[in-house]
Order: sequence, then structure tokens, then C-alpha cells
Amino acid sequence: MTDRRNSSSGATRRGFLGAGLAAVAGSSLASERTRADAAPAAEAAQRTVEPFYGAHQSGVVTPQQAHTYIAAFDLTVDKRDDVIRLMRRWTRAGALLSVGEPVEVPSAKEYSDALDPADIVGLGPSRLTLTFGFGASLFAKDGRDRYGLSSQRPEALVDLPKFPGEQLEPARTGGDLFVQACADNPQVAFHAVRQISGLAYGLAQIRWVQTGFVSDYGAGKTPRNLMGFKDGTGNPRIDDAGEMAKFVWVGDEAQPWMRGGSYIVVRRARMALEHWDRMNIAFQEQTFGRKKMSGAPLGGDNEFDPIDLAKTDANGDPLMPENSHVRLAHEFALQGSKILRRSYSYNDGANVIAERWPPWRQGMEFDAGLIFICYQRDPRSGFIRIFDKLSRFDMMNQFVTNNGGGLFACPAGVAEGEYLGQRLFEAGA
Amino acid sequence: MTDRRNSSSGATRRGFLGAGLAAVAGSSLASERTRADAAPAAEAAQRTVEPFYGAHQSGVVTPQQAHTYIAAFDLTVDKRDDVIRLMRRWTRAGALLSVGEPVEVPSAKEYSDALDPADIVGLGPSRLTLTFGFGASLFAKDGRDRYGLSSQRPEALVDLPKFPGEQLEPARTGGDLFVQACADNPQVAFHAVRQISGLAYGLAQIRWVQTGFVSDYGAGKTPRNLMGFKDGTGNPRIDDAGEMAKFVWVGDEAQPWMRGGSYIVVRRARMALEHWDRMNIAFQEQTFGRKKMSGAPLGGDNEFDPIDLAKTDANGDPLMPENSHVRLAHEFALQGSKILRRSYSYNDGANVIAERWPPWRQGMEFDAGLIFICYQRDPRSGFIRIFDKLSRFDMMNQFVTNNGGGLFACPAGVAEGEYLGQRLFEAGA
Repeated sequence: MTDRRNSSSGATRRGFLGAGLAAVAGSSLASERTRADAAPAAEAAQRTVEPFYGAHQSGVVTPQQAHTYIAAFDLTVDKRDDVIRLMRRWTRAGALLSVGEPVEVPSAKEYSDALDPADIVGLGPSRLTLTFGFGASLFAKDGRDRYGLSSQRPEALVDLPKFPGEQLEPARTGGDLFVQACADNPQVAFHAVRQISGLAYGLAQIRWVQTGFVSDYGAGKTPRNLMGFKDGTGNPRIDDAGEMAKFVWVGDEAQPWMRGGSYIVVRRARMALEHWDRMNIAFQEQTFGRKKMSGAPLGGDNEFDPIDLAKTDANGDPLMPENSHVRLAHEFALQGSKILRRSYSYNDGANVIAERWPPWRQGMEFDAGLIFICYQRDPRSGFIRIFDKLSRFDMMNQFVTNNGGGLFACPAGVAEGEYLGQRLFEAGA
Repeated sequence: MTDRRNSSSGATRRGFLGAGLAAVAGSSLASERTRADAAPAAEAAQRTVEPFYGAHQSGVVTPQQAHTYIAAFDLTVDKRDDVIRLMRRWTRAGALLSVGEPVEVPSAKEYSDALDPADIVGLGPSRLTLTFGFGASLFAKDGRDRYGLSSQRPEALVDLPKFPGEQLEPARTGGDLFVQACADNPQVAFHAVRQISGLAYGLAQIRWVQTGFVSDYGAGKTPRNLMGFKDGTGNPRIDDAGEMAKFVWVGDEAQPWMRGGSYIVVRRARMALEHWDRMNIAFQEQTFGRKKMSGAPLGGDNEFDPIDLAKTDANGDPLMPENSHVRLAHEFALQGSKILRRSYSYNDGANVIAERWPPWRQGMEFDAGLIFICYQRDPRSGFIRIFDKLSRFDMMNQFVTNNGGGLFACPAGVAEGEYLGQRLFEAGA
């Protein structure tokens, strides 16, 4: 097949730029670029760019985009320099992709050069962000300090404890490296990971991937999850820099490379939707702790009413049930534990499952639910502390099974001229 | 759990209507409905309704929506009356869902009533269409005429032949019943199938499902598939009623119930994207038969230039290679075989695969590609005739593996007061 693959070895290796960007001089395909522009309104949205460089990585306090494509990778190399090579590639790619420019994938021995697939030519950056993270196994795996980085492992990058009820599948869990692409177009998010993965050829391989989406319910509206409830009402505000500094961004407590970074926890939470859909609304509301339509906390009238855990009914029973999701989570907020949630729904088809609850139905069910995602300054006082209790008592557990995800340290943002994680790799030297 | 499930047995069973629709008098949740409206522009798009009733089913010559959710079902009942019961439910649901109204799922013995999940409250109909189809196994399965319908099986509803290279997985193939939901929002499409599936509880069960998406490249622009090529350029025009009557809608050649219907062929075509991305553009163009950026046929300058199979280069070789995808398909068009393509890209994560081509890479690759979908008046002169040759000679085959799908007879549209397929079930009586 070599002849076919090389049948036009003279073809340009840099074929095009994203529509609307400057042409590459001398490209034989420059004249082939899409000429007409997309409709003005859609186009403006597609062209919106989120910054790649900065003190913090994008994709954390960025207003949430409509689609995500997550990928975790395992490194297949032994040398730190090879990891650094990958970080340099990913940094360059991140900067290009975020402005809608194509990324060339450098030669691999067995192949011709790989080219940008061009499937998103005309779609623009669509607010693409790429948020990178490092798993605990980057610092040490099976007791081995693979890249001389173990002294730089942050204390907060713990191994997640085993939580009651979880059914983590190794093929959906963990990874040395992590990237989350978010964009307002699903194809733009996938395209970015496709290029990130191509750049890892021979250095790292995909361990697991996950897509997600969140619908636009209108400006300022809290989106609903697949259970039909508004999800994210009690979130800290991303435009409150003080709250973000306190709860999301890592400070002086950590190694320099991690300051200004954050810890991401991802949990693939499959929902037993067929089961949930057959519960009556009052039961659903008691499980969640909020009214279904308005999102008001039980005992309140409107979505953003304060949560009152003390209110009781005529019998003296709390209006917000003891084991409701919102009550349990809110108790931690009162104690000072806050996390920034940035979850997506997922929809991965259907497969055979045995339910964990009467009538123990077995058969084809939707593999759909929530990609729970949260950022925090320290997972020990954030997700782990909160979820340790929720995983034991939350009434919602009977409808939700966590079967994948991970904890990753997302380093500080990248300055122009730097590569991703540079301060880590230089400190570890 | 019975006590919990029924802990508020007085709760209303009809909790809400889609935002913007009239409230249900007396509903205890009426006051809970979302009050404010979505942003005007997005809202207008969300509120657009495609008709459910009509001479033809919607979703065939409907301008293509951005997202699809497909489901195939196997019937689990023995009596024709039970199938009719399901058809009545689905008809009612289709009419309600298409205007954004909730659908209640009737009681099943073991459960309380199931309610609309409400996850799309506020999103509107988003141009939802539901297109239903009947598989050959509805008419006879393992030689058995299950519902007394075998005399009504159309000649054109053949069993698809085995095509070279295909690797159909039974769990992704076939089914007694078929529905394709299309909408401009992925959650609206999923919501519809979730309700359709809930209504089938105890009557039919999901056999396979499939999501898909197509990006909006701007008004009148041909979308690109994941290989980066414009896909659909040569399609007959959906607004050309003459072409649709000739090539898409079934005429007097069929049983009355099928007249005004169409046959859908679905093929899940996994693309070896990691491999494709490493081919140079000139090779990709020779494989496809079009220029990558402009979509112009080889030998032409612009996307909609006529395809000229006779043009040769200085050596006398055809500019449009003998085994290029477009050439092979165009030869059938010249002979009068036309199909209406309405394909979506799909993106189902990543899994381990062994490639069929040098360097026979094995490992994690994206499970992504094309949900090829076409409609035609007769699959024997449509898809089967065309694909029989393409499956043997198309150069693109080395990058594409068909691993699922099916052929379904989509009956004529439903008139108000009728149920889906009523003329079939009455004729078969």
C-alpha cells in the first residue's frame, strides 16, 4: 500500500487554515479554502475565542460551553524528555486550536505526515478550551518514580479512596495525563482531542474518553440534568474572584508549579433513568431536595431562596429530608467546603444492565447520566470530604452508579514561550 | 421501597407542559413552571415545530436537524393487538412530543405511573421529528408469521444481502421496529426516544440505539464528515417534489399502507480516523473523488461543477480515479439510481481495535464515523444496487467498516385520528 499512500508525495503538508484566518503563503490548497462566510450570527458565535495563555488554564472559570470531549492518556515512554516533548507539542497545539488554526502532527516512522483532518473548516474556534491535568501515576506508578517527579507530587493529589457503592471500571478510570476539551460545537471539541491524540502517537495512548453535553436553557438559567432537575444552583459564582481564589485556585500551600492551578475530579455517574422516570415527582423532589419545576429548595419558593435546613412540617419532620442530596451537600457548604461544579450530561447509547434496586430489572437500559466534574483547591477538603458522606447517605445513590473518572492536578496556566507544566518538569530535574 | 415510591401518592400525574404552552388547569405544579422566557433568538429556534401528521412522515424531506437519536426495538408480545396498542401510544406520543408537550407513560403493574422526565422543560420542540419504520422481522421471524402480517410484507422489504467487508454485529443490527428522532438539540432527541421506550415497557425492548450529529456550516453549505470532506453535494434536492416522488416516496407499486412511505437504510460506518489522518491530502482526494477544501469533483473547479468521468490527465489516466467513491456512486446516478442521503456523524468514544490495513495497528482508537442514512423508493434499485458495487471497489473501504444498521419500511404519514401503520394492521387482519 506504500505506493498508494505516497502517491502524491509532493502534496503540501500544511493544507489550510481555519476559515476566516490568513492563508498560508505558497500552500497549494490556499485557493481551495472555503470562500463564502457562514451566516453572520452563527458565525460570530463560532468565532469567539477563549484565551489559551494566562495565569490559570482556561476551561475552569470559563462560562460553560455546550459540549465536552474528555480524554485520559497513559504514557508509553520511559524518559522525562519524551514527556516534555509531548507537553511542548500539546502546548503548541492548544494555542493553535484555541484560535481555530490547524495543527500538523509530526512524522512518525511508519507514516507519512498527518494532517489536520479539516472536518471543522468553517466552524471556527467555537469557544474551545483545553484543560490539561496530571494523574498521580505520572509521579509514581506501581511504586516506581518513572520520571523523577515524585518529590513534586502535591500532597493534595491523593489516591481517591474507595467510596461505598461505586463500581469503577479500570478502563474508564485514572490515567497519567488528562485533557478536557470544551466547545460550543461537539465536532470542534472532538477535533481538538483527535489532534491531541495524534500528537501523542508513540508517546502516550488513550486510556479512556468521554463525551458530554449541556443544553442552553437561556441566559442565566440553570441547566437541567437528565433527571429533570436544575443542577448547579448552589454553585459558587465564576465571576467572584474572591470565591475562586478561596475554593478553586491552588495557593502557596503547594509546589510552585501547582500554584494557580486546580484539582479536577471527574465521575461518570450512570443514572437508572428507566427507574427514575417511574418515581413520582414528590419522591423525586424529596430525593433531590428541590422542587422539580422551579428548582426551589424544599421549604422555599424560588430557585435561589436560601436553603433552610431547620424548617419542619406539622409533624416536626424536616421539610428538607435528612438524606436528600441538597441537604447533605449544603451541610458541607455551611462548614466551609465548596467545590466548583462544571458537569455535563452524557448519552452513550444503551446496553444490558442489572439494576441494583427492586424490581431488579435486567435488560437493555440507556447508558446515560452525568459526567460529574468539579474543580477545587484541595480535593481532601472538597470532593472527598463531601462525597464520603454523600456516597453513604444520599437517597439519590439508588439511581446513580459511579463507574469511572479520576482525580487530576491541573497545573497553573501557561505563559507565552512556556510549555505546559514546565515548572514541574524543571523542578523535578 | 414501596412506601418511598408512593410516599406522596396524591402528587399530580401530569406535572407540567413544555415552557410556553398552556398550563394544565388544576395541576399542583402549574405554579412551578419556568416563568421567564429564554433569550428571544434561541427561543424562536427552539420553538419551531415540524408537523407530525401528514401524507408523509416527517424527518425524511425535512431540512436536516443537528442531532439524531435512533432506536431499534424487538417486540416481546405475541398478539397483534398488543402491537397495535404500542402503535397507538407511539402515535399519540409523536404528536405531543413534536409540539413540545410531555407524554405520560401509562401504568405498568410493578410501577407507579411514569412521568415525563422534565429535563427538556424550557427547550421547546427544537424541530423534533420522529420517523418510524418496520423491519422485515415484524412480518416474519424465523419463518413464523407472528402477527398475521406476512401477506403485507412489501417485495421491496428484502433481507439485505451480505456485502463484502462488512462486519455486522447482531446487537447493532436489525430490529422489528425502528424510530429515528431528529432535533436541533441532542437532549430533545434523546428525551423523545426515552419516552418512546418508556411507552414500550412490557411490549417491546430496545435492541440498539445510536446517536449522531451534524454541524451547521452556514445556510446552504454542505456539511463535512469526520474525514473532512463535504458529504452530500450530489444529493437530490428535498424541495424538488418531482425528484422526491420519483426516488424517495413509494408509489402504487406497493401495498396501500406503504404508499407515500419510504425505505430507510442505516449503516454504522466506523472510520479508521487515526489511519485516515495520516494519508496525504492528494491521496484522500483521489479516494473520495473530490477536492478536500472546495468539494469540487476531481477535474472540476467548484463544488457544484458537473462530474466529468471522461476527463483525463496528460498520461490518459482519468482525473476521477476508477475506484474513487464519487465516481462509483455517480455511475449509478447516470443509470437512474438515486437515493436521498441524510447521514450523521457519530462519536462513541474509543475502544480497542485491530486495523484491517498496514501497519495493522492494534490498540485504542476512536469509535467514530458516519451513521450513513438514506431514503429511497425501493432499496433494490437504490442502496443495494449502489452499495453492491461500492462495497467491492470503493477505495474508501479500507478506512471504513460497516458494523451495524438495518433496512426498515417507513409507512405513509399518519392522518389525525389514525394511528401509525393503521392501514397495515387493518389490511393484515
